[in-house]
Amino acid sequence: MALIVQKYGGTSVADIEKIRNVARRAVRIREAGNQVVVVLSAMAGETDRLIRLAQSACPDPPGREYDALIATGEQVTITLLSMILSEMNHPAKSFLGFQVRIRTDSAHAKARILEVETAEITQALRDGIICVVAGFQGVDERGDITTLGRGGSDTSAVALAAALKADVCDIYTDVDGVYTTDPNLCAKARRIDRISYDEMLEMARTGAKVLQPRSVELAKKYGVPIRVKCSFSDEGGTLVTKEDKDMEKEVVSGVTYDRDQAKLTVVHVPDRPGIAGKIFTPLSAQNIVVDMIIQNASLEGYTDLTFTVSKKDSREACRLLQDVCREIGAASVDLDDNVAKVSIIGVGMVSHSGVASRMFSALAHEGINILMISTSEIKISCVVQAKYTELAVMVLHDTFGLEQKRD
Amino acid sequence: MALIVQKYGGTSVADIEKIRNVARRAVRIREAGNQVVVVLSAMAGETDRLIRLAQSACPDPPGREYDALIATGEQVTITLLSMILSEMNHPAKSFLGFQVRIRTDSAHAKARILEVETAEITQALRDGIICVVAGFQGVDERGDITTLGRGGSDTSAVALAAALKADVCDIYTDVDGVYTTDPNLCAKARRIDRISYDEMLEMARTGAKVLQPRSVELAKKYGVPIRVKCSFSDEGGTLVTKEDKDMEKEVVSGVTYDRDQAKLTVVHVPDRPGIAGKIFTPLSAQNIVVDMIIQNASLEGYTDLTFTVSKKDSREACRLLQDVCREIGAASVDLDDNVAKVSIIGVGMVSHSGVASRMFSALAHEGINILMISTSEIKISCVVQAKYTELAVMVLHDTFGLEQKRD
Repeated sequence: MALIVQKYGGTSVADIEKIRNVARRAVRIREAGNQVVVVLSAMAGETDRLIRLAQSACPDPPGREYDALIATGEQVTITLLSMILSEMNHPAKSFLGFQVRIRTDSAHAKARILEVETAEITQALRDGIICVVAGFQGVDERGDITTLGRGGSDTSAVALAAALKADVCDIYTDVDGVYTTDPNLCAKARRIDRISYDEMLEMARTGAKVLQPRSVELAKKYGVPIRVKCSFSDEGGTLVTKEDKDMEKEVVSGVTYDRDQAKLTVVHVPDRPGIAGKIFTPLSAQNIVVDMIIQNASLEGYTDLTFTVSKKDSREACRLLQDVCREIGAASVDLDDNVAKVSIIGVGMVSHSGVASRMFSALAHEGINILMISTSEIKISCVVQAKYTELAVMVLHDTFGLEQKRD
Repeated sequence: MALIVQKYGGTSVADIEKIRNVARRAVRIREAGNQVVVVLSAMAGETDRLIRLAQSACPDPPGREYDALIATGEQVTITLLSMILSEMNHPAKSFLGFQVRIRTDSAHAKARILEVETAEITQALRDGIICVVAGFQGVDERGDITTLGRGGSDTSAVALAAALKADVCDIYTDVDGVYTTDPNLCAKARRIDRISYDEMLEMARTGAKVLQPRSVELAKKYGVPIRVKCSFSDEGGTLVTKEDKDMEKEVVSGVTYDRDQAKLTVVHVPDRPGIAGKIFTPLSAQNIVVDMIIQNASLEGYTDLTFTVSKKDSREACRLLQDVCREIGAASVDLDDNVAKVSIIGVGMVSHSGVASRMFSALAHEGINILMISTSEIKISCVVQAKYTELAVMVLHDTFGLEQKRD
């Protein structure tokens, strides 16, 4: 008997028929003798509908109210699934964040989980009940409803799995696993059977949509194996787990891309200590996350500072930087939001040299100019013009032979 | 400075613009120096939509899950109103049932309020915050969400007003007060300025839709004055309060009707002790509420037993009674769901004789046959054929001169 946490995303619970499908799957696992916890997202499109509703009420709604509003989406799906399970004669019980309880900090709309209490769910599981938990939401110490941000249901599922010491956390989605790249962009994309936490984390951070980076961090921290599966089929799947000898030791395991990038350059910055702080502090004060940063070599006491932010933040960042420019005596701020980031990820990079140069050559050979580069131990990212995104992904997928599985 | 509880129904919060209207009204009361608690229903139609969703999942959904599902309707409106109030620079805070907390029993879908805790709201009011509370919902001792049944938001508002010792409970609706009869049916209907709890209670019980009977009971028990007002206008209004000398001492204050009636007759029942119990126990076991009961004079040891139930229960009641018939040796069960109940209500009846005979004569004069009669101290109800409903209401309204206000 195993304890299995299953998480289903919005497309898997988009209507009553799809929720019935989820119920049948949960029942099958339960009838095989396992204890089952199901974590659900809201119906596809519902969270967006609620966000639009909030914005029509108030352009900048208070976080406490915003969270209590958008948390209703999961309240609907968990109660419907529990009803359907009861109808199938399987005892089931829905749990909202405050009922579990999933304790978070009070950073509304992007709360972090502090603790998952397990007493209620553990007791229900012992009683043979299928526990259906609202993803995406928690409750803070004041008893206010909080939400975890986009993709937060993955994080809820992994945190529950960790707290309950579950054997595995199955993340059901509309694709049947993690691919070497986005199959919608590149037909040669191949499903990966097993991938390490670290590689998955880099893929998630650099644009792979299949898992939320925070959920992978959490899985790694607590050693929770994640299986990414398709909710409409039993085939396939990808296991995200600790790196081990059986794992494909690819030099490069995947190619990712992120179109939500904008490039800002502060031109002709006096190269003095403390200047970078002056530039980035106003951005972080507005919660604008800066991704890649490049500082040119100083020339006659001046330098250019280039960095990327997400597209939605680019206008505000630009505005904030105009003020900074005047203050520090820089020449101007250039904004280019017609860019994308293309990355290659692989644990094999650590022990193979020349990976970066192969990447740069392959892009150059297609006439793709590299605007920015950033690297980590197991990742290389290049910012390129947005129009080259698809081409760059396909070229890199070919260059590193990702179509074929190697032994 | 007064403490005012305002309740708005579904049509008053049907969309963002209407919710803005509610916000403006709450702000006006707040800016006049009062403490304000706003209780909201779900958007018009939303609770029905959620009920349909539940039924599409499961014909007979478990109460715990059903309540957690339909309670989301109020969660949406209270958070939207709080957002709009914040946007107007008025500190506001939404409260769900479990946050107030409104403690109820565990009778899902028709829970009764046991206690309303006031600490959180009292503190918020002291801090100058407009408190926006979800109507219709509470929480039981297990922490499960409960709902109070149709019209439950009125009950929530009055219970809150009682617990907070509010000066008044304003119930905003789509009509501007309590009328002598339904203005949609009878153009001569006149708005009543003041009405006693007892009369209001009888009117609500006999078909007036403007207030929920339970909310009036509660208001009477705790002496909470209710003002029924229109949310789209400042004119009019009806005060529901203790009977006093200033009140119109009408013989008849109002005429009500209820089309949700079905008449059942168990024919040729052996007239033995215990027979009535045998007939009604199976009905109450299925939660079928029996309204009027008439037993004919016994003839040669046999009698007929006639009573009314609501239309939705009539088929099941009929089926249950077929079995009872066989068991007790009665002849048959007749069902007539083509009936309606018409009632006149007035505290003046107590001290005036001949009210009933005036009612019966007026109906007879129009050729309306009376099928059943039931009376209380301040009410007389007649069951008539459904097609005479409108005619009966107009005739009675005229007969007792309700069009003119008397001094």
